[in-house]
Parts: sequence; C-alpha cells; structure tokens
Amino acid sequence: MSSTDERAGTRRAIATVCLSGTLEDKLTAAAAAGFAGVEIFENDLLASPWSPKQVREHCVDLGLTVDLYQPFRDFEAVPPAVLAANLRRAEHKFAVMEQLGADTMLVCSTVSPDAVDDDDLAAEQLHTLADRAAAHGLRIAYEALAWGRFVNTYEHSWRIVRRAAHPALGLCLDSFHILSRGSDPAAIRTIPGEKLFFLQLADAPRLEMDVLQWSRHHRLFPGQGAFDLTAFTGHVLAAGYSGPLSLEVFNDVFRQADPGPAAVDAMRSLLALEESLGTTELPVAPALRGHAFTEIATAGPEVSPALAGLGFTHVGQHRTKPVALWQQGAARILVNSAGVEESASVVALAVESADPVASADRAQRLLAPVLPRTHSAGEADLSAVAAPDGTSVFFCRTGPGDSWLDDFAPVSGKAASGKAVSGKPGQVVDGAGLTGVDHVSLTQPFDHFDEAALFYRAVLGLEPEPVTEFAAPFGLVRSRTVTGGEVRIALDSALLRRGDWAPGVREPQHIAFATDDALASARAMRALGAPLLPIPGNYYDDLDARLAPPPDLLDALRAHSILYDRDEHGTLLHFFTEILGGRVFFEVVQRIDGYAGYGAANAPVRMAAHRRHRLAGR
Amino acid sequence: MSSTDERAGTRRAIATVCLSGTLEDKLTAAAAAGFAGVEIFENDLLASPWSPKQVREHCVDLGLTVDLYQPFRDFEAVPPAVLAANLRRAEHKFAVMEQLGADTMLVCSTVSPDAVDDDDLAAEQLHTLADRAAAHGLRIAYEALAWGRFVNTYEHSWRIVRRAAHPALGLCLDSFHILSRGSDPAAIRTIPGEKLFFLQLADAPRLEMDVLQWSRHHRLFPGQGAFDLTAFTGHVLAAGYSGPLSLEVFNDVFRQADPGPAAVDAMRSLLALEESLGTTELPVAPALRGHAFTEIATAGPEVSPALAGLGFTHVGQHRTKPVALWQQGAARILVNSAGVEESASVVALAVESADPVASADRAQRLLAPVLPRTHSAGEADLSAVAAPDGTSVFFCRTGPGDSWLDDFAPVSGKAASGKAVSGKPGQVVDGAGLTGVDHVSLTQPFDHFDEAALFYRAVLGLEPEPVTEFAAPFGLVRSRTVTGGEVRIALDSALLRRGDWAPGVREPQHIAFATDDALASARAMRALGAPLLPIPGNYYDDLDARLAPPPDLLDALRAHSILYDRDEHGTLLHFFTEILGGRVFFEVVQRIDGYAGYGAANAPVRMAAHRRHRLAGR
Repeated sequence: MSSTDERAGTRRAIATVCLSGTLEDKLTAAAAAGFAGVEIFENDLLASPWSPKQVREHCVDLGLTVDLYQPFRDFEAVPPAVLAANLRRAEHKFAVMEQLGADTMLVCSTVSPDAVDDDDLAAEQLHTLADRAAAHGLRIAYEALAWGRFVNTYEHSWRIVRRAAHPALGLCLDSFHILSRGSDPAAIRTIPGEKLFFLQLADAPRLEMDVLQWSRHHRLFPGQGAFDLTAFTGHVLAAGYSGPLSLEVFNDVFRQADPGPAAVDAMRSLLALEESLGTTELPVAPALRGHAFTEIATAGPEVSPALAGLGFTHVGQHRTKPVALWQQGAARILVNSAGVEESASVVALAVESADPVASADRAQRLLAPVLPRTHSAGEADLSAVAAPDGTSVFFCRTGPGDSWLDDFAPVSGKAASGKAVSGKPGQVVDGAGLTGVDHVSLTQPFDHFDEAALFYRAVLGLEPEPVTEFAAPFGLVRSRTVTGGEVRIALDSALLRRGDWAPGVREPQHIAFATDDALASARAMRALGAPLLPIPGNYYDDLDARLAPPPDLLDALRAHSILYDRDEHGTLLHFFTEILGGRVFFEVVQRIDGYAGYGAANAPVRMAAHRRHRLAGR
Repeated sequence: MSSTDERAGTRRAIATVCLSGTLEDKLTAAAAAGFAGVEIFENDLLASPWSPKQVREHCVDLGLTVDLYQPFRDFEAVPPAVLAANLRRAEHKFAVMEQLGADTMLVCSTVSPDAVDDDDLAAEQLHTLADRAAAHGLRIAYEALAWGRFVNTYEHSWRIVRRAAHPALGLCLDSFHILSRGSDPAAIRTIPGEKLFFLQLADAPRLEMDVLQWSRHHRLFPGQGAFDLTAFTGHVLAAGYSGPLSLEVFNDVFRQADPGPAAVDAMRSLLALEESLGTTELPVAPALRGHAFTEIATAGPEVSPALAGLGFTHVGQHRTKPVALWQQGAARILVNSAGVEESASVVALAVESADPVASADRAQRLLAPVLPRTHSAGEADLSAVAAPDGTSVFFCRTGPGDSWLDDFAPVSGKAASGKAVSGKPGQVVDGAGLTGVDHVSLTQPFDHFDEAALFYRAVLGLEPEPVTEFAAPFGLVRSRTVTGGEVRIALDSALLRRGDWAPGVREPQHIAFATDDALASARAMRALGAPLLPIPGNYYDDLDARLAPPPDLLDALRAHSILYDRDEHGTLLHFFTEILGGRVFFEVVQRIDGYAGYGAANAPVRMAAHRRHRLAGR
C-alpha cells in the first residue's frame, strides 16, 4: 500500500465495523463516500459469500485497498501449548490475509485467563508471531486495549514492542483506548514513526461507565464527542506516522443506520479533523450574520393566520411560485403552499453569509448534497444544500443589488400596528415587538442526531453546545444547539425512537422569535388573536416555590402563560403558540442579562400543554 | 390512608414517573391496571391543567389514593438562610399536598453544594421540617439516595431519623438505592416498622456504570432484573412495614411506551413478587410438558412445501377452518390460510399443560388478556391468552379423550419416508429424523422485551435465562430465553428500534426442531428439496482456525451448511431454512452432550445469509 500513499495524513480509511449491513453493503458505502481503504473486521468477512480473493477483487473494482485485518485476540504471554494453538490460528489468518491483500494484522493485548503477567514472555512470543508474519510478507500491529488484562496503555504496549525488536512488529494506536483512560498522548511523539504501523480514530462522549461497554456501544466519529482528536492526531503525525487515518467506531446507532449516509458522515468527520490539523485545506467558512429566512411548507389553513396573530405582515408574494413572505422586525418567514400536504413542516432555513458562493463551495467539499437550483430567469440564484434530516439550507446575502427579496412582488396591506405597509419586501415592519429570529429548532430522526451536529459544525462553522437530556412526557429527549454568527439551530431527538403510542407531538419543529419585551409582545399578540398556548397554574405555583420571582412579575407571567427560567447569567421569559398544521409551532423569547440557554427545564410543561390542546381539539 | 389499608403487603401503588404520557394518561392507566394508589411525581403535576384539588377528585373517581408526593430535594444540613428558603419552599408544597390529599412527602438526602457533613444539623433541620409537616397533618419520609452527598445508605438515613426523633419523620426505603450499592438489606429488620413510612420497589439489570445514570434510565419492574426483591421485601415486611408496595421505576423504554400495557406489566410484576413472598395466592403454575403445536398464518405458497421438504407430513385438516396439521416426530405445525396475507407469521404457540384450566386461570389472575373462544360445537375448547407481542398462547392436554387433535380430519398420503400414512392426526410420523420442537423464537417489539420475559415467567412459570447481546449485521440484538418443562421460547429484540434501511430481516420468527442426527437430517432434507440456507465457506475456514473440529466433521458441516458451536457442556450442530413468506424460517438443532445454548455466536452469519438470499431473490 505504501506505493499509493499520499502525503501523511491525507489517506483515509474506515473499519467495516463502523457501518451497518453485510460486507458487500459496507464496501459499497465506503467507496461511495470516497474512502481509499478499509479495515476488514473478521466477522464481516466470515458472513460474506465472497472468498477473501473475491473480496480483494471487489475492493480493487471499488478503488479500495484493504489496510488492516482485525482483530486477532488473546495471543501473547501464554504457556507453550496455548502458544502452539495460537500460532496455528495465526497461520490460518495469514493465509486469509494473503488472499485478501491485507498486509497488516491487528493483535489486541490479551484478556485471556491463560495469559501471565510477563512482558519478556509477551515480547518473545510477539517476536515469534512477527517472524511468522514476515515470512508471508505481513506485519503485526500490537494494540493495548483499554481493558487489556496486563497491557492496557500505549506506553506499556510500546515497551513490549521495543523489547521484541522485530521489524515486522509495530504499534496500533487507537484514540479511544488511549483517551478513554485519560492517558497523556504527548509521549507518542517519542515513538519512532516507523514503529507506528496503524492509527485508529474514534471520538466518544464522556460517560461514567465500564470502559468496555463505553467502547463497544458509544464511540463516535471525530468531532462528535468530547475527545481532543486534533491534539491526539497531531502527536501521532509529529512522530512521523505515515499510514492512513482510519476510523474505528463501534456505535449502536450507526450499526443499524443506512450505511451510505453513515459513510458520508464518517468522511466529513475526517475532512474536518484534517482541516483542524492543517493537512487538508477547505474554503474557510464565511462569517454568518443571522437567519435570512425560514420556510414553512403547508397547504393547510393554520400557519398564515397565526403569523398575522403574532404581528407579522404579509409583505411580499413570490413572482412565480405560491410562496408568501411574512415579515416582522428582521424576522422573515416564507409560507410555501405549493404542496398538497395540509400538515406544516419547516422545509428550509436560510443563513446570511458574508460569501454565499464560498459557503456553498465549502459545503460541497464537505459532501453536503447540493440541491438542484430551480430559479427562473431573472430570479435570485441561491445556493442550497441538504442537511441530514432533509432540510434545505440556503446561503444568502440579503441586501441591495443582490437580493432574493427581489423575487417577491410587494403586497399592499396594513401592518399589525395599523400603519399602512408601503409594500417593499425586506423593509423592517412593525408588529408585536418581534425583532428577529432567536433560533430554529428542528427535531432530528434519532439516527441522525450526531450526524446533524457534525454537519452544522463542519459545513456552517457553527459551534455545538453540550448535549443535554431531559425527561419529556412521551420519552427522553436529547438536545444540542449549534450556534455562531447570530445563527442558532436547536437539534432535538427522542433518544429511543418514539413508541407508536406517542400522541400528536411527534417530531415537532419550531421557530423562536426574539423580543425585547415578552410581556408587551404577549399582550399585543393576544389582542391580535394569536393562538397562544395556555400554561397550567400549577407551573406558576411551583415557580413561586422554586425561584420566587417578584409577585407582580409572577402574576403577569401567569396571566399571559409566559414561562420563566434562570441561568448563571440572567433570565429567560418565553411563550409558545399551539401546534399548527400538526407539526410546527412558534415561540417568543426574551433573553435578559445574557441568559444563554433555551428554557429546557420548561420543555416538558410545554409538551404536555401541546398534548392537551390536541386532545381538546379532537 | 391507613384506614383503607388492607393487610400488609397487599396494597399496591405505582409512581406516575413509571409511565408515559401526561398525568391524566398515567392515572387512567394505573387505575385500569388495578392499582390502589399512586405516588405523584412533581413534574407530572406541574404540567397538568388540573389543580391539585381537581387531581384529588379525579383520583377519587378512579378509585386511587395519593400515597406520596415526591421528590423534595436538597433540604437538610444547610446554613440558616438556605434553611429559611427551603422551609418556604416546603410550605408551598405542603399546601399543594393538602389539596392533593397526599399525607406523605418524600425528602431525598441532599446533593447540594450548600450542605455540610453534619448529622446533628441534618437531624435538627429534619425535625423542624417534620414539625411544620405535622402542623398540616402531614409526614416526611426521608430517603438516602445512592448518590447522596453525605447520606447514601439506609443505615445512615436511619441514624439521622432516629436522632431527629419526631413522630412525623420516618424513612422511605427504595430497593434500588439500597441494592445498587450492594448494601445488606437484612438490618432493615431492626428498624421499628412504624418508622418505615414508605417502600419503593424497583429492580434493575446489573450494569457497571454511574449509579445515578443506572437509576434514572435502567430500572425495571420487580422480576425483570437481577435484584433479589423477594428477600429485600421480606425484610421490610418482617420489620412491620404496613404501607403500600409501591413501584418507582425510571426506564427509558417504559417512559415512551403505551402506559396502559405498561401499567399492566407493572401490576403483574407486583403480583408475582407477592406470590413469591406468600402474601398473595395464585393458582400454582401447572407443570408443562413441551410444545403441543405452533401455528403459522399465511396465505402464501412457501411454508407448506418447506415443511414437506423438512420431512413433515400433512396428517390432518381442520374440520371447519382452513387449517392444515403437519407432523413429524412429536413436532406439530398448524398452517392457517384463513387470512389474506401472503406473508407468514407465527400467530400461536401451544404448550402441553398438566392442567389447562388452572393454567388459564393463573394467566387471567396475572392479567393476561384472555382470548375469545371461537370453537364450533363439538370442537375442543382450548383456553388461550395473548402474549405482549400479540402471539396467542394456548394451554393443551393432548391425549385420549380430551384432544384438540379430534378437530382435525385425517388426510391420507405418504410420509416423507415413503410409508403410507394411516391418516390419524397426532400419531408419530417418520420423516427426516425430527423428534420434536426444540424452541420457538419470537422477535419482540423493542418496547415489549422486558415485559415479555416477565409474562412468560409469571404466567407460564418458565425460568428466564440471562440476557445476551450480540452485534448483528443490521444492529445490536438482545436475546433472552425462557425455559421449563421442555418448553423453550427465545425472545429476541433489536436493542434500538430498527432503522428504516434494515432490509428483509425485520422481526423474523422461527421454529427450531430437534434431531438426534443433524447430518442425517440434513441429507434427508436436501433429498426432499428443503430450501436450506447456504453458509459461506469463510465461516468454515474460521471454524477450523478457531475450534478445529475433526477434519471429517468439518468437511461434512461445510458440505451441508451446518453451523457449529461449543459451550462448557457440549456441542451444537444446527442449520436453517431460507426465510419463508417474508418473516418465518425453520431451524434444525442437534444438542450433543447437553449443549445448553442457542448458537448465538452463529446468528450474525445466519442473518447475513438470509439477507443475501433475499437480495438474490429479487
């Protein structure tokens, strides 16, 4: 393989165990996502109807090399009889590898009760194994499992490999095994690069649990977890490692997800890692400046009156499509009635980019599916890509001479304030005090949650905030927000796929608008007939017991069904509409003194209220 | 409430946190399952549109008492200013409890950074709280959380309660908090019963993880996990506890499952626990003696020829229904073609019971839904109940004078052996060497897995074997077998609900037949044209490397696509048919020297082979 190596750090591989399906499915997905090589996990081969030679041929056809065969377990530091059996086993696998065209075998540090704690014996027996491997033109990469019986740190595995002193014996470094134990990876720099035979990369969330279970079920692709893989990989490259960057991720969700998108997610994670390492150059993510518009598709009757009730004005109508532009302050909502579905969905979000072309170029380089452009002659040519959940993400620069707003013809009418609207789409319109979009919240299919956070981080350059979980009336909800440049996107997901019974509130989406005065906005909206969500009195009794807001404020909150939260910075006042068109609702948010959260503590109360409203509406 | 108490151990309650939905949903489900009381979890009340007084009224209407209000957190061992705020908070909650008609409040041991490690201060402040509670006619049940900052064992909480010495202050004992830490519950017997104010029961699987996460996500109903709740509860009752047995189970799956069946599952767990304690009497589970029949529904063309290929003979035809009886050895399969679905499903399993009426009576007492009987005059009147996945479970006594077999008219024909069949349903028929049913494997919806194991244990008296998990091509699979009296039922479930992509092998079901000679059976079946599943050669190469069976045997296994496994007792030879009618397949099993497992190590190979077969068939 070394003949096909590109410069250090740019050759990319993936272990078949990362992906769902049969070996055939996995190889196809890896190749389609642009990987150059694969680690073949033994169980995938055993279940394949292709002989190892046929697997090699299929890999050649797909443009894949087989970079590693794994795992070979429980080899070293055993009594002679066990050694003989282990060498017999190894010879069988060497024969498979020769047919397969794999030149490196992963040997994991032993967990066997047969083994003894004797580094000299381990080194001696690994030397024997390496000798056998070398006779076949193969080599052995020895890896310290985090739960290895005697050898469970990379420093220890390196001592044994150094002692064995065989040219066909080197190390496999796995970021999970090293970082999960809290080992300092800096000393990797002291290991000669030519003894680093293989590098496996995996991220993971910080979990307090048995490390074997953590490893087998909860690994993530780089950038999706809590490990500093940039620093880790930097140490390995600094040592002179010249092999592939190879992903080895055991994850219960990826294990059952469509392998095509999962392989793309994996490749995106590597590209972003390489960008942070400086080994791959991508167009820099242009600065963002907030939400340009958010588009709701619905053929139903509920959304437009609700927008009017919130103080929005219908200021424009698309010149060629059945799309209405509603505006208030800097908040713009498109209501698209081209479809036949009565139900409502957020189908697109648009961000203001300092350079939409560069944004789209970066997105494409990061494997975001570019959406076909359907503009007519003379209309704005907006670049858009599809997010993992299918939402269209547009890159806009709203302003003179280059504006998608010109696609909308003015609509004359009256603003909520009673003032006549001059009919110029894009102008700031008075209403009920909304100033713009605070955030857009998109419920993710549970098997796209981690992929979505990485997508928005890598493609848009947003920063993921920590993952939170809360117990909602119909199941646990996991939540994570990605933010930056006045753009905030909240990603929610039911941790387990929802049960069949969960009524009404499946996969809701919502748009939260900002106000400087939640009480005034709520009063104005109530006067305009907005379908605001009533909140139970019990909530306010508890709020009094718990946070004791000033009595006047508490009375006002109760009167207007406004929820309240505090964090270490400040205070949040927020309220909601009912669910419109089965799926979409609106929120109004006032952040006081730099409150930074999203009122997650109040979400279960909101969810139960939505459920009640729907039952009442039957 | 004490006025309504029945004798100790027979009053049953459930915490609202065990169930999914709004408070309204939860109360309805708890009452329908027969609970007498509920613990109201504060968050459920806050999100309810009913005032506490209205909740009380609804509970009265439903026949429920409110036995506990919970949780009140972070109260004790704090500086004076914090104490004042905490007492204000408590007074608010006392007001709620008075309206709610709840007389006991749960106070959890503190996890607050404000608290200090001072048992005297904790006792003094809890005394003050109990005084305030007593003024409202209420009482305080103090509970040591397993992760309490200073107080995290029941012995410690009891020392504080004893020191506080207030009649309105007692203990709440929670089996999870005590057993998860490995505490010895025997000393509970030394606590005066009148100081045991409340008992919360939860089971759990043994997991090596952070105890708080274990507690919040993985609790189970009694009998579904690894704790000895019979011994635990026995100690509490021996101490003189006279309050309700109350379930408090935080579980991610139950949290999103339909609350109606979940409440029934909960009640069944309590009834079984009480039976083991001797505080509730149920009809003893009659002895079972194997599988009487298994019924497959299909209007498709694949199942009957496959049975013929396996050496079964069509020996009988139902006199009034389109149901064919196939037999070989003691194995009987009914093929029901009354429906219109081409796809095949296992719709019923029948067990031989020493007393079918008692079996059905016990099932009904354990809340198994009794199925309507649809027999015609003169036909056998079989009792049947529905398992959690909807499978009908029949109780039979197959034999002279009392036989469901009389409902089938003889069919003349030839057995697979070539011998003419005399046409008597029920007689032992030669074929390809099958002697009976080894086990029936039913894939469970992922949210019924734990419920199903408890159902078969409690209702049929079967013994659950330990839960195993394995990585299958399309996602993790969890597996558990329930066995007893020659009945074996394997319950499998995809740990996460399957992704949309998982092709073909969704929720398969299969029937495994026993043979004394797998090789001879395979040869005979191949000659009869059975649709046997080919196994890849790679599997046999690895088998040689791994277990090195004798070369002759290995060749024969390879030639006949027979899989091989070993456990500490003996050896398993087994092979499979293709999937028939989209969902059902058959297995043939030879257990040698008391092999006790099910060949789970080979399941991924089988699953990949099924997937391949389906792709090839497109």
